[in-house]
Amino acid sequence: MIDELDRQVIEMLWRVNQQTLHRMQEPFQVATKTNYNDLVTSVDKQNEQEIDTFLRQVDLGCQILSEEGYGNQQITSTAGHVWIVDPIDGTLNFVKQRNHFGIMLALYIDGQPTLGYIMDSMNKQLYHGGPGRGVFVNDRQLAAPADLSLREGLVSISSPLILGNVKNLPMVAKAASGLRMYGSAAMEMIGMLKGELAGYVSHLHPWDLAAGRVMAEELGLVVKSIDGTALDVLSSNLVLIATKQVSREIAELTD
Amino acid sequence: MIDELDRQVIEMLWRVNQQTLHRMQEPFQVATKTNYNDLVTSVDKQNEQEIDTFLRQVDLGCQILSEEGYGNQQITSTAGHVWIVDPIDGTLNFVKQRNHFGIMLALYIDGQPTLGYIMDSMNKQLYHGGPGRGVFVNDRQLAAPADLSLREGLVSISSPLILGNVKNLPMVAKAASGLRMYGSAAMEMIGMLKGELAGYVSHLHPWDLAAGRVMAEELGLVVKSIDGTALDVLSSNLVLIATKQVSREIAELTD
Repeated sequence: MIDELDRQVIEMLWRVNQQTLHRMQEPFQVATKTNYNDLVTSVDKQNEQEIDTFLRQVDLGCQILSEEGYGNQQITSTAGHVWIVDPIDGTLNFVKQRNHFGIMLALYIDGQPTLGYIMDSMNKQLYHGGPGRGVFVNDRQLAAPADLSLREGLVSISSPLILGNVKNLPMVAKAASGLRMYGSAAMEMIGMLKGELAGYVSHLHPWDLAAGRVMAEELGLVVKSIDGTALDVLSSNLVLIATKQVSREIAELTD
Repeated sequence: MIDELDRQVIEMLWRVNQQTLHRMQEPFQVATKTNYNDLVTSVDKQNEQEIDTFLRQVDLGCQILSEEGYGNQQITSTAGHVWIVDPIDGTLNFVKQRNHFGIMLALYIDGQPTLGYIMDSMNKQLYHGGPGRGVFVNDRQLAAPADLSLREGLVSISSPLILGNVKNLPMVAKAASGLRMYGSAAMEMIGMLKGELAGYVSHLHPWDLAAGRVMAEELGLVVKSIDGTALDVLSSNLVLIATKQVSREIAELTD
């Protein structure tokens, strides 16, 4: 049953991505949320509505947690099937760059990471997988990234954490081979899955983290809150995704 | 004559890029230069040798300034034809990511920007153009980027400038719509040419700047040293490439 769901979701995501690329070429509406850099567009909303409608059809009785909140009931329990949806991740990039954004979706069953999907929209590459299933980009299976050290690897740390000097993270950046910022959790997660980045630290909402977590864990990467507390699927966390070595080194530097 | 040179150079760059992508899949040598993050590979050197050999054949008597210094004579004058070559820009990305790097080349005649080329290697897109010629990505002409303000635009500022709090640049990042770091002057320059970024500040060597400058100026962007002194084609500079508005705002913030 999970295999059939997986097949249908993949088909749906290609369809939604096609529409996204089409809608991006036409005028669309942009509105601000909490501040002038926190944007939502009509494309986010259209995507969310289509994904939610699809999920309710193919997975009866599921719960859905999605960024823009279309049709969300209050979710307080992770029992059963919970789908977590980011209809456009990196909306600022989507609006300002028409590039470097993604669509993310994950299924957690009884709180357990089960299926994860990240669509790299512009490159038309779909990352998908789950525990025991492997992680694929389109049809090609990804190898587990090498266990690089901080000195050997590039890291991404989101700009508010660097500019606000949060938890000594500028020192982590200095200790790394280099610092990168792509501006979209989807893009940074893909960097982690491909081994292009050895660490990623950011304050992430459930829809920023859910899909990447499923696949990162399957590839042997560490996914945890930076202060070592357990990750809550339904809450926002200051999250670290890293190789085992980088995870240990960051724990020491941010202690 | 310039048109014919231009045609030949474009052909050569596609050939060198094809070889680069091929060599990247095979084992190659990596050596450090000034420190463990300052890398050169055998692919850099092969590219440089091929580009230099080609230029000496098609442009007799030219001078060549290239990053790895293959066959460089000491260049003290910008008289005549000076070619400035970056055989792999973003070598750290090339080595660590096999992604997000470029090949850059520019022709200055009597010190005047004349032709610029940036090959986005992995995306197989060649940006090329010059004064009065327009700027193209492959065969498609680029429009001049909108004159965005700092608040409206994303900026890239290289990590040493942010982490070292140089010239108040963290404040510039905070005033912008967002901060990005791609780790390759070629990638950031492409971001500027496409209007994906509204400003880019970095310490740049001649080979990091020469090609991007030619095309950025043709598109109406400001290219200058951050302290307002004249840019020296043959020296390293702390450089700002920006929209007119962002250039003015950064001048105020870094004054």
